[in-house]
Amino acid sequence: MTPPQSKNFHTANPEAESAIDRSIPEFEAAKISDEDEYFQNHKPPSYLPEIEKEVQEFIEYHRKNTQKRIALVTSGGTTVPLENNTVRFIDNFSAGTRGATSAEYFLENGYAVIFLHREFSLLPYSRHYSHSTNCFLDFMTEKNDKIEINPKFADEMLKVLRKYNDAKESNSLILIPFTTVNQYLYTLKTVSECLHVMSSKALFYLAAAVSDFFIPQSRMPTHKIQSSATKDGELVIRLAQVPKFLSRLVENWAQGAMIISFKLETDNNILIKKATSALDRYHHQLVIGNLLQTRKKEVVFVKPNGDNDWIKLNEDEIKGNVEIESKMIPAVIKVHDEWIQSNSS
Amino acid sequence: MTPPQSKNFHTANPEAESAIDRSIPEFEAAKISDEDEYFQNHKPPSYLPEIEKEVQEFIEYHRKNTQKRIALVTSGGTTVPLENNTVRFIDNFSAGTRGATSAEYFLENGYAVIFLHREFSLLPYSRHYSHSTNCFLDFMTEKNDKIEINPKFADEMLKVLRKYNDAKESNSLILIPFTTVNQYLYTLKTVSECLHVMSSKALFYLAAAVSDFFIPQSRMPTHKIQSSATKDGELVIRLAQVPKFLSRLVENWAQGAMIISFKLETDNNILIKKATSALDRYHHQLVIGNLLQTRKKEVVFVKPNGDNDWIKLNEDEIKGNVEIESKMIPAVIKVHDEWIQSNSS
Repeated sequence: MTPPQSKNFHTANPEAESAIDRSIPEFEAAKISDEDEYFQNHKPPSYLPEIEKEVQEFIEYHRKNTQKRIALVTSGGTTVPLENNTVRFIDNFSAGTRGATSAEYFLENGYAVIFLHREFSLLPYSRHYSHSTNCFLDFMTEKNDKIEINPKFADEMLKVLRKYNDAKESNSLILIPFTTVNQYLYTLKTVSECLHVMSSKALFYLAAAVSDFFIPQSRMPTHKIQSSATKDGELVIRLAQVPKFLSRLVENWAQGAMIISFKLETDNNILIKKATSALDRYHHQLVIGNLLQTRKKEVVFVKPNGDNDWIKLNEDEIKGNVEIESKMIPAVIKVHDEWIQSNSS
Repeated sequence: MTPPQSKNFHTANPEAESAIDRSIPEFEAAKISDEDEYFQNHKPPSYLPEIEKEVQEFIEYHRKNTQKRIALVTSGGTTVPLENNTVRFIDNFSAGTRGATSAEYFLENGYAVIFLHREFSLLPYSRHYSHSTNCFLDFMTEKNDKIEINPKFADEMLKVLRKYNDAKESNSLILIPFTTVNQYLYTLKTVSECLHVMSSKALFYLAAAVSDFFIPQSRMPTHKIQSSATKDGELVIRLAQVPKFLSRLVENWAQGAMIISFKLETDNNILIKKATSALDRYHHQLVIGNLLQTRKKEVVFVKPNGDNDWIKLNEDEIKGNVEIESKMIPAVIKVHDEWIQSNSS
């Protein structure tokens, strides 16, 4: 059984959910505060049944053959299209470094990984060579009329290739892409429902940067907005809040699973408070807090019992290019061990 | 002389120019209708002098040593940040296919190319292997404990590598990245002023997808917008129009150069009209019109004399994966020949 390939869902024609108000104050934006109402009013992406099938096969394979735990790692930012024929969209910044790096450490620690990622964001293993300022071709050289890997990079690249091939051959990694927030929400729901059979052996590691705001599908212009059509040359975009799906995830879709959300802030003064209030609101197991400025050096595990455990790289580790995920993931797994324990007793 | 490398300007800390209105109708958005006022009120990116130096050296090298014409190719979409510590931004969709592909054909036809591109968008040559659903590592294989290029891909990749190395060794290609619309505008201005010495031998091929709207720097929140801080859970973003810089380019910055702009629409009924009115307004030499849906199969050259010349791929060419840029660029060069001729007589 070979692992399914990542699908190519073009940004140019997303399952879009947006509207633009150019009439300024009269327009009453649709308010969708309820998760069910969201799914009633927004169409699923057309490819969803195909993904459901692939994910089910993946989960069944591991239930029957490997007994591995399964981590769903979400990664990268979602988009909110501003037009149906999308030229413009609002994006949440995220290269996907946290998710792609974490996925590798989950794999190394014996988990199978469902990697739900923004298309073209960083992927496990290939992340070491993509998105660099070095061009792909700078790793190549010509010798005796043949192309080869530049010997400077060959040893390191072989190590990465072996890990990548291990993950492929053991069918431990499945790549599922999204672009829009609508695609993300529908796919998360579907994958979560599939993972229900895993009970406490499923781990949700929700590192994607999901838009807080969106524009309901009901008022989406078909064509590119013309600047001449706007009042005083201005464009006013009115966004509604994305419903909070985490409680639905905890209570219905993935009951029994261990759920970890992330809180990314830029203001140090509100980080712990916001992480704590997320736990109070959704009753899940762990919030990993981080600041945009220091996220590669330190994170904080905020737990329902009130503990705030910081994980930090020391100076030597920073100099040695140690990845903080190499310390985070074993700590996450320890919490997962306890979760499984407490659910079995 | 080795060509300068593309710089890594992080999206996380752009020279941002934005404001968000959460108070809804009272706020009077700053109107910046004039190009000079824009530059007075917005700071240049800190790295601009470095780019200026690199571009000047590149131009001087070709003026002294190769007498090549120089094409400035702009490519990819600009962003408009919504916060200073940017997590969210508005983006214009463009993978940069048109620009990256066109740059290769300019190089093959003897031009030197300044490639002003959105960071991480497609680049000439590496475009054949990046952004594909195939992972970088899928092109590699292990044999006798060594990593090598999979023989399936080796011949084709060698051809691309040779062209890439030719461009590097002849110092014919310089890569200049941007992320925000402010970085784009400042860099375009600077590069244009440097190209002034080339007179009619300079060609501007403005394929980048530049935002029509932005938010003036004067009202930019420092930290991530909190959804709890918005009225009724809504977020209203009020954008001003980006000043139209093309007339400044034609009249001042790059006087004498041949200037080509692009018009991308989704509505076939307004394409020619909009292309023609751009020519009327800016008095430049050529607008290349294209529709989002068919842009890889057909484009139209709209000229000041009223001619609309379509360039289309026929069925055989489409089946044979012919790139439309292989026909477009020779046609562009013919127009450039005439422009140089008319300027010398």
